[in-house]
Amino acid sequence: MSQSDLPAVSRSDLPTLRIALLGFGVVGSEVGRLLMTQGEDLAARTGANLELIGVAVRSLDEPQVKALKPPNPTTDAAGLISQADIVVELMGGIEPARTFMLKAIEKGAAVVTANKALLAAHGPTLYEAAADAGVDLFYEAAVGGAIPIVRGVRVSLAGDKVTRILGIVNGTTNYVLDQMTREHLAFSDAVSQAQRLGFAEADPTADVEGFDAASKAAILASLAFHTRVSIDEVHREGITAVTQADIEAAAEGGYVIKLLAIVERVPDGSGSDIGVVARVHPALVPLDHPLASVHGAFNAVFTESQAAGPLMFYGQGAGGVPTSSAVVGDIVAAARHRLAGQTGPGESAYTGLKAMPIAVAHTRYQVRLVVADRPGVLASVATVFAAHRVSIDEVRQTPRPTPEPFDGPTTLANLVIVTHNAAEADLSATVADLGELDAVQAVAGVIRVEGV
Amino acid sequence: MSQSDLPAVSRSDLPTLRIALLGFGVVGSEVGRLLMTQGEDLAARTGANLELIGVAVRSLDEPQVKALKPPNPTTDAAGLISQADIVVELMGGIEPARTFMLKAIEKGAAVVTANKALLAAHGPTLYEAAADAGVDLFYEAAVGGAIPIVRGVRVSLAGDKVTRILGIVNGTTNYVLDQMTREHLAFSDAVSQAQRLGFAEADPTADVEGFDAASKAAILASLAFHTRVSIDEVHREGITAVTQADIEAAAEGGYVIKLLAIVERVPDGSGSDIGVVARVHPALVPLDHPLASVHGAFNAVFTESQAAGPLMFYGQGAGGVPTSSAVVGDIVAAARHRLAGQTGPGESAYTGLKAMPIAVAHTRYQVRLVVADRPGVLASVATVFAAHRVSIDEVRQTPRPTPEPFDGPTTLANLVIVTHNAAEADLSATVADLGELDAVQAVAGVIRVEGV
Repeated sequence: MSQSDLPAVSRSDLPTLRIALLGFGVVGSEVGRLLMTQGEDLAARTGANLELIGVAVRSLDEPQVKALKPPNPTTDAAGLISQADIVVELMGGIEPARTFMLKAIEKGAAVVTANKALLAAHGPTLYEAAADAGVDLFYEAAVGGAIPIVRGVRVSLAGDKVTRILGIVNGTTNYVLDQMTREHLAFSDAVSQAQRLGFAEADPTADVEGFDAASKAAILASLAFHTRVSIDEVHREGITAVTQADIEAAAEGGYVIKLLAIVERVPDGSGSDIGVVARVHPALVPLDHPLASVHGAFNAVFTESQAAGPLMFYGQGAGGVPTSSAVVGDIVAAARHRLAGQTGPGESAYTGLKAMPIAVAHTRYQVRLVVADRPGVLASVATVFAAHRVSIDEVRQTPRPTPEPFDGPTTLANLVIVTHNAAEADLSATVADLGELDAVQAVAGVIRVEGV
Repeated sequence: MSQSDLPAVSRSDLPTLRIALLGFGVVGSEVGRLLMTQGEDLAARTGANLELIGVAVRSLDEPQVKALKPPNPTTDAAGLISQADIVVELMGGIEPARTFMLKAIEKGAAVVTANKALLAAHGPTLYEAAADAGVDLFYEAAVGGAIPIVRGVRVSLAGDKVTRILGIVNGTTNYVLDQMTREHLAFSDAVSQAQRLGFAEADPTADVEGFDAASKAAILASLAFHTRVSIDEVHREGITAVTQADIEAAAEGGYVIKLLAIVERVPDGSGSDIGVVARVHPALVPLDHPLASVHGAFNAVFTESQAAGPLMFYGQGAGGVPTSSAVVGDIVAAARHRLAGQTGPGESAYTGLKAMPIAVAHTRYQVRLVVADRPGVLASVATVFAAHRVSIDEVRQTPRPTPEPFDGPTTLANLVIVTHNAAEADLSATVADLGELDAVQAVAGVIRVEGV
């Protein structure tokens, strides 16, 4: 940082807090670099010298270790943890990260982590251990990278009632869908391009199948609704089935397709909530919704609260440098608390609201049908919707430009139907019955419509 | 709130924190309503009963008091303050708000306020008093209403180095400019419409002349750069001079006009900063910048930081209900600290960076000239820019559709020049010299270009 930012107080007068770093990969090495180079500013902001006492790595030969030369690289994570005031876990994965974090908490260290998979699978164990030990467990970087959404929900909205969150929380899939939309690439070409540019892993499964977004949905649901939701309770669909035809049909209707993580309360109709639903799936978003203009690998989280109304938090959701900003912000907060002998807000799970299956969710749907182009077809289709109490908002019928394998001798047309809000279960029943209609050649696609 | 959100712990087991509310207007009455109706949830989230012990008002006959019937309405604010653990100041204005806040702090109460004018004028006095007394002084609602930008900068970015903030922090002016842009209204018509809809005061001066935004710029600059900036040090231009011609010229170039509050470091070129600049003025924003799609009375704050990169926080910047979300969030945070016998982060002014005049700022400019349509004019204009080391990025020349009073017998053309980054002082000198050129009939407009 700049020379003019030098603090007035000499650092030698300040107490020292010992920081142990577990993992020295893309994020870990950047956090290490910040701790090693920005000591003056961090000391002025926390009132303590933040001393990086060591870095636990899998091998001392890791190239980042050789390049940045952090103090005391070691393969003995347990030994390092036992000397630390604040343990920063950036190894990722479930084990041994979980064991090390529990050990750190038990020893009385504050823990900062970006490990969304671990929190989404074993959060309550960790939160309870931290509460019992009276230490901070912070994880701003676990959702949305640099975007301060965890603190936004956990602290800033603590006096409000969050009713729904819609998030673009996976940069890889947003990049792929954005390229499919703006450059008209096929899914596989967009994925290859993302891999070349470093926006996607060699094995993109965790991203394109929605696992990463589902972890974040579980964390957001737990925070927003003061309850416990694990990744197993998140309905998950990836983007591998999204085609150019879907994207073009979306554009015709004034929508763009995004992979959304959605968490919401399920009201009982009389002002109470019977549970929460957490779901990850591709969705149509209207072009004038703030989420529609989130391009490339950016992330954004859109919250709806009773008093605050809509809020959106936008920024870089991944990458070593952006994510390190959130991690170091947590280290500063944990250090300030440590000096004052206090802790920040812990887990809030007092509502005990249960995660419910997606069948109870209500939203809007776009159903694309291939139908025989003859009189009476729309009437029979509309009757099926009505029979399941699904109300139709909009209908678009267009001739089919190019025949597909299932096209027979009949003249066919595309029929696109957008519904009003309907129960997921009713919509599923509608689609099943539509498939039985003589006039319906195929149900070409069903996609939820969000943010309307 | 919902019945299913009932906490497991009985409220009678919890300690009580006494809340005094000063002011019961648009925001105050909504905060009062939340405290009166959401006690169960607030107790579960804080671990204390938040008891509204009274409301200080100017007159007991205020309609909000009669309608909501808060406990103990009184005109004796001082007496009420002396009994409170947390004082919520929502009176607005400098006095008597300042005296009451200092009294509350001195008595050892935590203070929550939304009073941007007071903080921008007398922040340091209040911050120092709070630090001396060891109490919290929170003001999330002072900037951006419901948007958690204060905590975002103060806590989440505490480990990062913020380099610049661009904010749409005044909903009235954003509404007026948005209507001028999208509905092609004249300035005065857009203001009248905003007044009819409740987006502008009967006397819109504080908004349209940029005073409100300047207060927020002072607060943001102090927070982001860990220093002290007062409203007197903010360069301020309002939107009263913005015309349809400006907006149309902006649209032709792919820009939209927004009133921005901009705070930025002034680098010395060798990695240090020699100061900060805080400025409020209309600016051209490229259409693909996230701030360009902030419509109506919404606010958004776009931050640029060394590690986090760009972040944007978007939401409702005013209104009783949204603003009350931020106020109650602060009350919950102050209550949690109170129970733990601790305080949150206080003022951080360790850099001592000085506010500097706008002359030292560097940005891009759009200069609109009316010139004689003859050979050699562009060369002479370009020579003036070059003489002041102002580099030209883009030139557009178009015939003048309709003559203006200063048009003489010469055939005239509009010449629009967009510069690269240049020093404000150099640009001012360029504009002065352009006015002296024979070929230049008029300098029709100069507007800064931001977010490129």
